[in-house]
Amino acid sequence: LSNGQFQTVYNVFSFALASMLFTALFLLVSQGRVLPRYRQALVVSATVCGIAAYHYFRIINSFNEGFAPTAIGGDYTLTPFGFNEAYRYVDWLLTVPLLLLETIAVLALPRATRASLLTKLIPASVLMIALGYPGEVAIDTLPKMLWGAASTIPFLYILYVLFVELTKSLGRQPAEVAASVKRLRILLIATWGVYPISYLFPVFGLDGADAFVLRQVGYSVADVLAKCLYGLVIYKIARMKSAADDPVFA
Amino acid sequence: LSNGQFQTVYNVFSFALASMLFTALFLLVSQGRVLPRYRQALVVSATVCGIAAYHYFRIINSFNEGFAPTAIGGDYTLTPFGFNEAYRYVDWLLTVPLLLLETIAVLALPRATRASLLTKLIPASVLMIALGYPGEVAIDTLPKMLWGAASTIPFLYILYVLFVELTKSLGRQPAEVAASVKRLRILLIATWGVYPISYLFPVFGLDGADAFVLRQVGYSVADVLAKCLYGLVIYKIARMKSAADDPVFA
Amino acid sequence: LSNGQFQTVYNVFSFALASMLFTALFLLVSQGRVLPRYRQALVVSATVCGIAAYHYFRIINSFNEGFAPTAIGGDYTLTPFGFNEAYRYVDWLLTVPLLLLETIAVLALPRATRASLLTKLIPASVLMIALGYPGEVAIDTLPKMLWGAASTIPFLYILYVLFVELTKSLGRQPAEVAASVKRLRILLIATWGVYPISYLFPVFGLDGADAFVLRQVGYSVADVLAKCLYGLVIYKIARMKSAADDPVFA
Amino acid sequence: LSNGQFQTVYNVFSFALASMLFTALFLLVSQGRVLPRYRQALVVSATVCGIAAYHYFRIINSFNEGFAPTAIGGDYTLTPFGFNEAYRYVDWLLTVPLLLLETIAVLALPRATRASLLTKLIPASVLMIALGYPGEVAIDTLPKMLWGAASTIPFLYILYVLFVELTKSLGRQPAEVAASVKRLRILLIATWGVYPISYLFPVFGLDGADAFVLRQVGYSVADVLAKCLYGLVIYKIARMKSAADDPVFA
Amino acid sequence: LSNGQFQTVYNVFSFALASMLFTALFLLVSQGRVLPRYRQALVVSATVCGIAAYHYFRIINSFNEGFAPTAIGGDYTLTPFGFNEAYRYVDWLLTVPLLLLETIAVLALPRATRASLLTKLIPASVLMIALGYPGEVAIDTLPKMLWGAASTIPFLYILYVLFVELTKSLGRQPAEVAASVKRLRILLIATWGVYPISYLFPVFGLDGADAFVLRQVGYSVADVLAKCLYGLVIYKIARMKSAADDPVFA
Amino acid sequence: LSNGQFQTVYNVFSFALASMLFTALFLLVSQGRVLPRYRQALVVSATVCGIAAYHYFRIINSFNEGFAPTAIGGDYTLTPFGFNEAYRYVDWLLTVPLLLLETIAVLALPRATRASLLTKLIPASVLMIALGYPGEVAIDTLPKMLWGAASTIPFLYILYVLFVELTKSLGRQPAEVAASVKRLRILLIATWGVYPISYLFPVFGLDGADAFVLRQVGYSVADVLAKCLYGLVIYKIARMKSAADDPVFA
Ligand SMILES: CC1=C(/C=C/C(C)=C/C=C/C(C)=C/C=O)C(C)(C)CCC1
Ligand SMILES: CC1=C(/C=C/C(C)=C/C=C/C(C)=C/C=O)C(C)(C)CCC1
Ligand SMILES: CC1=C(/C=C/C(C)=C/C=C/C(C)=C/C=O)C(C)(C)CCC1
Ligand SMILES: CC1=C(/C=C/C(C)=C/C=C/C(C)=C/C=O)C(C)(C)CCC1
Ligand SMILES: CC1=C(/C=C/C(C)=C/C=C/C(C)=C/C=O)C(C)(C)CCC1
Ligand SMILES: CC1=C(/C=C/C(C)=C/C=C/C(C)=C/C=O)C(C)(C)CCC1
Repeated sequence: LSNGQFQTVYNVFSFALASMLFTALFLLVSQGRVLPRYRQALVVSATVCGIAAYHYFRIINSFNEGFAPTAIGGDYTLTPFGFNEAYRYVDWLLTVPLLLLETIAVLALPRATRASLLTKLIPASVLMIALGYPGEVAIDTLPKMLWGAASTIPFLYILYVLFVELTKSLGRQPAEVAASVKRLRILLIATWGVYPISYLFPVFGLDGADAFVLRQVGYSVADVLAKCLYGLVIYKIARMKSAADDPVFA
Repeated sequence: LSNGQFQTVYNVFSFALASMLFTALFLLVSQGRVLPRYRQALVVSATVCGIAAYHYFRIINSFNEGFAPTAIGGDYTLTPFGFNEAYRYVDWLLTVPLLLLETIAVLALPRATRASLLTKLIPASVLMIALGYPGEVAIDTLPKMLWGAASTIPFLYILYVLFVELTKSLGRQPAEVAASVKRLRILLIATWGVYPISYLFPVFGLDGADAFVLRQVGYSVADVLAKCLYGLVIYKIARMKSAADDPVFA
Repeated sequence: LSNGQFQTVYNVFSFALASMLFTALFLLVSQGRVLPRYRQALVVSATVCGIAAYHYFRIINSFNEGFAPTAIGGDYTLTPFGFNEAYRYVDWLLTVPLLLLETIAVLALPRATRASLLTKLIPASVLMIALGYPGEVAIDTLPKMLWGAASTIPFLYILYVLFVELTKSLGRQPAEVAASVKRLRILLIATWGVYPISYLFPVFGLDGADAFVLRQVGYSVADVLAKCLYGLVIYKIARMKSAADDPVFA
Repeated sequence: LSNGQFQTVYNVFSFALASMLFTALFLLVSQGRVLPRYRQALVVSATVCGIAAYHYFRIINSFNEGFAPTAIGGDYTLTPFGFNEAYRYVDWLLTVPLLLLETIAVLALPRATRASLLTKLIPASVLMIALGYPGEVAIDTLPKMLWGAASTIPFLYILYVLFVELTKSLGRQPAEVAASVKRLRILLIATWGVYPISYLFPVFGLDGADAFVLRQVGYSVADVLAKCLYGLVIYKIARMKSAADDPVFA
Repeated sequence: LSNGQFQTVYNVFSFALASMLFTALFLLVSQGRVLPRYRQALVVSATVCGIAAYHYFRIINSFNEGFAPTAIGGDYTLTPFGFNEAYRYVDWLLTVPLLLLETIAVLALPRATRASLLTKLIPASVLMIALGYPGEVAIDTLPKMLWGAASTIPFLYILYVLFVELTKSLGRQPAEVAASVKRLRILLIATWGVYPISYLFPVFGLDGADAFVLRQVGYSVADVLAKCLYGLVIYKIARMKSAADDPVFA
Repeated sequence: LSNGQFQTVYNVFSFALASMLFTALFLLVSQGRVLPRYRQALVVSATVCGIAAYHYFRIINSFNEGFAPTAIGGDYTLTPFGFNEAYRYVDWLLTVPLLLLETIAVLALPRATRASLLTKLIPASVLMIALGYPGEVAIDTLPKMLWGAASTIPFLYILYVLFVELTKSLGRQPAEVAASVKRLRILLIATWGVYPISYLFPVFGLDGADAFVLRQVGYSVADVLAKCLYGLVIYKIARMKSAADDPVFA
């Protein structure tokens, strides 16, 4: 890895850590600004950012241990400790189900629909990540494609169910809330799409140092959008719904 | 231990630590969402996850100290400090009784039945773990089987008492709560079953590096399910019961 | 010390540290569950567990510094730093008086009896520990027996006064509370009895590595029972008395 | 870098870290002094100072690692770790949008205008920083000027929109608040102007050690003014508006 | 210093640190148990114990740095860092005035008498410590005696004023409170007397390792009594006065 | 630096750090004891002490790094890291304006006078410190005198304005408050006077090790008086004014 590349990846990681950490703190501190009914969505979202901050902290340490500088402004070479990519999958295994939980919690659906939705979505998300991991670790392309395809089925299922559910709930929301829920939908599809694309990088022969940098930056930026920005939009929806239900929260 | 094996075990430990830590924090923060009557169950469950997080922190340190990398991407060799397995038994000695306490607390039984149940279950659980430990440490199979069998008696006793009690309480619960209590029962039997199976691994000659990795991953996953998922289901039951008793908590 | 012995002692210390720490946290968090009148007993009990956790943290550090591993799975040899036993006596000097204070506080006796009891018990407990220490440090048996006997007088005095007082208070308590107070009495006598027995070990020639391990495990287990379990029983009594005085706390 | 230069830069960094940290703490502690409606502006401002404090902490560490003293009172020479400038751009990427959010939040505009303003300003600010970064990294002047010019367009757009909006809001504010809002405007333009100027330093051939010191001091002082002082003025406006709406807050 | 001596001093310091730290925490946590009028006395007392805990933490570090073990169970020799005694005088300079403030605050005297008392006592206490320090540092006996005598004048003045004031206030207190105030007086004179005596040790030629151990133990025990026990008695007086003024605090 | 000198300076720094830290904590904890109107003065004063504590922590570290012991009880020699004096000026740049803010906040003047006073005083104080710094760094006497004189003009201006304002406000305060405000004035002039005097030390040829020790001790003692004692007097005034306005706070 050249000096410039090491710095860029390091800065992007530090950017992700800072935004995760402070989004979590921000959400926890501003719990009081929404009705108790919506607070759980904020707490779940703060936990998601918290878990991500913890994992990025681990990733930065492993990144520092994994690469050592040779000379002033010179390249960085790999050390025996190596850089541990699997942290991301461990992180997703925890955060993806919680993200779904968060989305449904803020819609404040009647208990029945909420229960049925969760029992469908959460297992599907775990399945998606579990199927994806072997593909990530596999070196030659064929098994990568097979596992990738397998993991895309639950992926599409989740997107489908969420999309239908979110659209259905639009009718019951006051005007501006509907606008935000629509933005939430686009944000979800846009950010979650990045992961499969980054996954396919090695398949297209993009496997050198540049590709490594591109993937790390891609993953991190997608993480920040899918967790922090997503969390803030959830916060805005909760604010608007609280204001609609009880003008004190205007 | 090969490089891949070390990484997998390390990641599973880190996954367990993250989920324990954040479940404990989540439960503590959302105490306000349930009636005071049910808060104690949440606090006990947070303590269980807290204790487990503390022990996994110790396990990861001992794992890092115990194995040192030889070359880039090379194998890991054992160091004189060694890897301390006994942490798990120490952890169970504390968490298993508390898990039972947690289950009974959330059912909010009349004080008399609660007292009698506890005096039967807690000693049995301590006995089960105490009898199990010598078997774990013993090297040749015969004593392992003897101690294992001895420890299974209290194990079955606990399952029996819990099962009967949970089923009896089903009648007195509102509809959806009953569903969750049933799910709690299955979760309990499923996860607690894993431990004796992992215990029997060495007996079936599965004793090499692979077996070690499999046991560690098995124990950790079972821990996460038996503590975190269990705690979250307890949280849901507490939420539903609060909503039933007092619509403010809907 | 053999490898196995080192591990067992280490695990027992870590068990004690974990249970002390989390009992203290548990008691602090659940203060709200009892009437203000009984909260002081919980705070004192949390302080006792806090002090013990602090001392066990010191004991583990001194234990690690004191012994160094020779080879993989090999024995541990003593280093110049040595293992500092006196922490226990320092710990008792603080916690024993507080334990007595805790017991009397939860009985919520009228102020006069409470004052007189304390002025008799606290000095006696300090005297007991002070007299015991020289015996502990002395090497040959005769001074050990003399000091031991001297320290047993205040010991018996405390047990006598506490026993009489607890029994007298039984009459004024509601039914189930009386049951718990009885259990408290047995627990007190059972656990406090262990200390003099462990003290007498060297006298019976039990002075090798095994005896050392046995004493440490004995002391630690007695500590956990006399502080954590004792604290939890106090918590239960406070809960029951609060429920009796004010059904809101049922 | 000469000894004097190292000390000055070090002290300015430490000055910035201290003011950021304590402004954040001050704003968090004095939330209670304003109406709930204005609290979010304070929380956002505290987050901005928090993020800046975190980044200055990183900058100081990287500065210490990057330069090592040769002799008593002697010069400092660069080490292979080097000094990482990019932290500033990462910091701006987070704080500039939040600063805009903060300004609009304290004006408590009707929800519609607020939404439209934000959707215009936030993307523009991200664009400004993104366009600026390549210029910063580029060595020869031409690309620097090109990127610089590109980034100035969104910069002017933001200033224009903010200026118009702030002036429009003057009419609806009580007298003294208007005075403060005017001061806010001048502060905004004054401090944000410093950054492009520091950016142009290398272009005017100012590239030696002195220029480095000047740029760092310039950026840090501008940061402190644009974040801490800005935050305190926002606090004063919130205080005055609360006093106007509800004399209890006088 | 022999091994035994080092251990004893070390344990006494650790005892003092533990009791100071936990008394401070105890007082802070139980603020709610007294009327707001008396809370300031508790906060001041917690600050005193906090300052003492901080200084004992420094003393232990300096003690560890100052002495290094030669062999297993062997003697400890002085290292160039040396053991810094002056911490005690720095500690007294802060805590003695606060102790006086604490005593007067709990008596809840009318504001006038309180102001006049403080303006007399606080300067006297600072004078006492200031005059004492040169004596402590002086090596030969004559200057020691001179400074000592000088410092004893304000010492006696403080005791006289406090004694008179405490006795005068006895009349206005309810019965049991008077008893406690009397105990406070004896405690004050007893503990404060120890310091001048320890000060005179070197004068009587007691200057070897034993004398050093005796002085350190003497000072520490006196500190614990004069700060922790004193603080707890103040707490009891505050409790009793609150109960007298408002039965809710019974 | 001789061993004795190093110890004295070290102890004075540690004294300052302890008093700053605990005054800040004390002020934060006792916010509840004054009317909300006066709380901001306490928070500002706590921030001042917090900033000073942070800087003294930095000063102690730099002092320890800067000097290394040669032999047991021997002298300390300067290391290449050197001792960084500029921390004080950085500290003053932050605390002096806040001290002025604090003084005006506690007088609770009508908003108009408060605003005008602040806009005059704060810039003057920044100017004073800014002008003073070059003098401090300059080696030969002439520039020192010039810069010193320049900085004394704003210094006198501040004292004049504060003096007039404090005296004018005397009329509107209840009796005892006036007494305290007078004491505040004397304290202000006495402590702020020390700084110019210490500044002039090198001018009078006092430049050896002794002078260094004297200046450090002088500055630190003045800091403690000007920040901690000043803060406590502000606290007393706030207490008295609250008691005057609302007898509940008596
Ligand atoms: C479809 C697909 C994948 C999808 C991954 C996703 C959708 C990850 C989402 C992560 C989030 C949202 C993280 C942070 O919040 C994999 C596993 C890469 C493997 C190949 C196919
Ligand atoms: C039956 C049996 C065992 C059972 C262990 C169990 C049931 C452990 C449960 C642990 C939990 C629930 C941990 C975390 O929450 C042993 C001791 C392995 C020994 C062999 C027989
Ligand atoms: C009678 C006796 C002793 C009693 C010790 C006791 C009773 C200790 C209790 C400790 C507790 C309860 C600790 C933690 O909570 C000694 C000193 C060993 C010396 C010999 C005689
Ligand atoms: C116009 C311009 C720039 C503007 C930067 C600005 C306006 C930064 C503001 C930063 C703040 C306000 C930070 C902390 O709060 C760059 C990127 C230097 C590049 C060249 C052109
Ligand atoms: C009379 C006298 C002295 C008195 C010291 C005292 C009275 C210290 C009290 C310390 C406390 C109470 C500390 C902790 O709370 C000195 C200075 C030794 C010097 C010689 C004469
Ligand atoms: C007049 C004068 C000075 C005054 C400094 C002052 C007045 C500092 C006050 C500091 C405080 C109050 C710190 C802590 O709270 C300088 C700069 C030494 C330079 C020479 C002339």
